[in-house]
Amino acid sequence: MTEKPILASASPRRIELLRSLGLDFDILPSPCENEPDMSIGPQAALESVALAKAETVRDMTGTDKLIIAADTSVLLDGAFLGKPRDRAEAAAMLRALSGRRHTVITGVALLRGPDNIVFSETTQVFFRPLTEREINIYTATGEPLDKAGAYGAQGMASLFIERIEGDYFNVVGLPVCRLGLMLARMGINILE
Amino acid sequence: MTEKPILASASPRRIELLRSLGLDFDILPSPCENEPDMSIGPQAALESVALAKAETVRDMTGTDKLIIAADTSVLLDGAFLGKPRDRAEAAAMLRALSGRRHTVITGVALLRGPDNIVFSETTQVFFRPLTEREINIYTATGEPLDKAGAYGAQGMASLFIERIEGDYFNVVGLPVCRLGLMLARMGINILE
Repeated sequence: MTEKPILASASPRRIELLRSLGLDFDILPSPCENEPDMSIGPQAALESVALAKAETVRDMTGTDKLIIAADTSVLLDGAFLGKPRDRAEAAAMLRALSGRRHTVITGVALLRGPDNIVFSETTQVFFRPLTEREINIYTATGEPLDKAGAYGAQGMASLFIERIEGDYFNVVGLPVCRLGLMLARMGINILE
Repeated sequence: MTEKPILASASPRRIELLRSLGLDFDILPSPCENEPDMSIGPQAALESVALAKAETVRDMTGTDKLIIAADTSVLLDGAFLGKPRDRAEAAAMLRALSGRRHTVITGVALLRGPDNIVFSETTQVFFRPLTEREINIYTATGEPLDKAGAYGAQGMASLFIERIEGDYFNVVGLPVCRLGLMLARMGINILE
């Protein structure tokens, strides 16, 4: 029997992505709320947050199962856009993203006991120019509020995304292709 | 009240994509089975198939509502990969796509009475190298059988897609960003 890994995240997008791969897993959201430390660079910062999330779940539970943790953020002009606090901040973020390219980075940690693989994946996202009316309607849906950068690639905001370069699923919350390869290195083969 | 457009497609992916935008529409699959005519080039060929699908629905029903039709295909080495006839052909297609870039093109037609907008969108897709074992397991799921090029970007095959360049949703079956802009030109605004 294959080991059932633990997803250390409450994100409905991550849960749905892993389910769509046919992977059987448990969910145990990490209470760790570390902020990324930009002084080590954006990729390393998000990898470090992901690892801290995974370690918190390992240390709380004492499990020797594989733990999957991730942290996704939007990088624009050298700074992270986190989750907006309210509708006004969501609108300001969308105004900043309008008609421009930004970068989405997901840091991922796979942890089993003392062993780990930590990596990050970067995707470029190009928004078409948005009107104030569109920003207003989209923020009114509430969709931006729980999402880094104030948008969810898989919902209505797909109308805004002209083009991406990289792994699309990385923007949703998990870099599925590389995650599959790294899970295999840790002994978990999804396709079997 | 906004006009309710007609989707001239039975594709569950297209139906789900349009629903996720919050668009209200009717479904009336087109019986037109024209094959793309490569002598006019791949983009023009798929645009022509999409327009023929829309015209068939218009002429059958006599409707003056807006009709949305699309045709998606996978282009590799100058030839289209259609839907595989059986598991062996699906495996052959996946072997051909393994470790390489291919092109996904969707032709789209918006038709209302005599007025139309026809366009196509192109996305580059990069598959990582696949093992025979992975191809075997994936084809056994049956997922490739109703899909051009023998894969669905949104399912298990997301494990194979290292990178894309362009509109992700174009690979699923509809170029959502441009479709939204073109629908607005035809008087249908999704975001309102």
